[in-house]
Amino acid sequence: MAFEEISTNLCFGGQQKVYSHYSEVCKCDMKFGIFLPNQLVEKATPVIWYLSGLTCTHENAMVKASAQQWASKAGVALIFPDTSPRGNGVPDDDSYALGQGAGFYVDSLQSPWSENFNMWSYINSELPELVFDKFSINYEKQGIMGHSMGGLGALNFAIRNPKTFKSVSAFAPIANPTTSEWGRLQFSHYLGDDESGWEKYDPVLLLSQQEFPGKVLVDQGEADEFLTNLQPEKLQQVLEKKGKKQAFRYQSGYDHSYFFVSTFIKDHIKLHSEAFE
Amino acid sequence: MAFEEISTNLCFGGQQKVYSHYSEVCKCDMKFGIFLPNQLVEKATPVIWYLSGLTCTHENAMVKASAQQWASKAGVALIFPDTSPRGNGVPDDDSYALGQGAGFYVDSLQSPWSENFNMWSYINSELPELVFDKFSINYEKQGIMGHSMGGLGALNFAIRNPKTFKSVSAFAPIANPTTSEWGRLQFSHYLGDDESGWEKYDPVLLLSQQEFPGKVLVDQGEADEFLTNLQPEKLQQVLEKKGKKQAFRYQSGYDHSYFFVSTFIKDHIKLHSEAFE
Repeated sequence: MAFEEISTNLCFGGQQKVYSHYSEVCKCDMKFGIFLPNQLVEKATPVIWYLSGLTCTHENAMVKASAQQWASKAGVALIFPDTSPRGNGVPDDDSYALGQGAGFYVDSLQSPWSENFNMWSYINSELPELVFDKFSINYEKQGIMGHSMGGLGALNFAIRNPKTFKSVSAFAPIANPTTSEWGRLQFSHYLGDDESGWEKYDPVLLLSQQEFPGKVLVDQGEADEFLTNLQPEKLQQVLEKKGKKQAFRYQSGYDHSYFFVSTFIKDHIKLHSEAFE
Repeated sequence: MAFEEISTNLCFGGQQKVYSHYSEVCKCDMKFGIFLPNQLVEKATPVIWYLSGLTCTHENAMVKASAQQWASKAGVALIFPDTSPRGNGVPDDDSYALGQGAGFYVDSLQSPWSENFNMWSYINSELPELVFDKFSINYEKQGIMGHSMGGLGALNFAIRNPKTFKSVSAFAPIANPTTSEWGRLQFSHYLGDDESGWEKYDPVLLLSQQEFPGKVLVDQGEADEFLTNLQPEKLQQVLEKKGKKQAFRYQSGYDHSYFFVSTFIKDHIKLHSEAFE
């Protein structure tokens, strides 16, 4: 598997790199960012995956989230995957919420999406195999976080892989997509009308059915402009039921932007770092 | 003078706002960002101006420089002006380095630029009058910083207004524009062929002729891809001659990007904050 290095920038003493590679499951070239701290220890450096939200590429969080400074201090690597397959040959839609930039971290079942839109397999299997083979990072010390659609992804990957991920955190995640516009629109297109096949991609449904033993942190801005699509109250409720009451925090006055994410990401990286100890 | 509020986002406990207003000197609508820390004290909050580089708008540093966290802690406001006049009625050029996004912080003397490209007067007079009238910030506690073309601007404004600015700092500034491609191209277009009129916009020439009594800090990445246009060695030399040897730092391995700026901006905001004490 050939990686092409797109860029490398020194940042807080570590290397912020971007690579391109051909994805077998998405059948197109995919980019991702990876931050490697300067304290990189051969095959021992923990890693946190950062999944981004609607309209984002691999780049948004990489340049806006202020994550590298804390990852550098903690000696943790960060991986910033793209949010969907991309390119001229890849299906798209006029809506920002469907198609390119809106993969929703599912494996699509329906035409025209199923050929490329297999972000579950890409993040769950293909990309980890590639990066753990290439970089000096530790498969045994993984955490995952995300924002909005990426928060949904982070929660789903963690809950369904509790042995892989020591910790999960989210900023304003889409909590219960089977019952909100962000979710029902995409799942009906990507997965089809049989809603029983949607449940495995719904954090609130998954959490109500099974345990996640690792550390959890969710931050939700109270002034978020998308509360009806996110339904944080449902996530708060199910976390309380599971004895993880401290895991959910409302942040007064904060909205859905990266100004919100950057303000609290220090706490998230701290949580993951503690889970690696 | 009517300000239109374009956006407001809570960020590290402070307000990151964007405004639009009509500029009399640039004869077009101009945007700027302002960060107001939560410890805002009526008419007593110090302020740091951040001038951006070629191709940037008011937004780049606002979202990429990781500045708000340190400004919030220090109780300092930040102002992020645009880098040029903009709009359909404003002259432009196919080069990224001339016209819109490339104001070079000068008052233009030649057609077609002189009608709008008066960024010296805009930053030096018009915008300060507007913001000190509207916001609770302290005219007596001002610092100025910038990146690349904005570093040139910051140095020029500070050196020519040593009573206004307590401190100046720069990331990879264009140090000696009268002798580099970045500078000669723009000055010949904006100011004309009489090079004696260029000198007041050249930090190395200004510094060699006069004193700046305030605090100074310049960071320059050694892996910067634009060293021949920046000529940092000349700035380092004149700072040494003026007894400010500690003010200039080379940073090994860093390039010209915001990954470099965000890594060291904490030190810059600290320098300015100390100058306000």
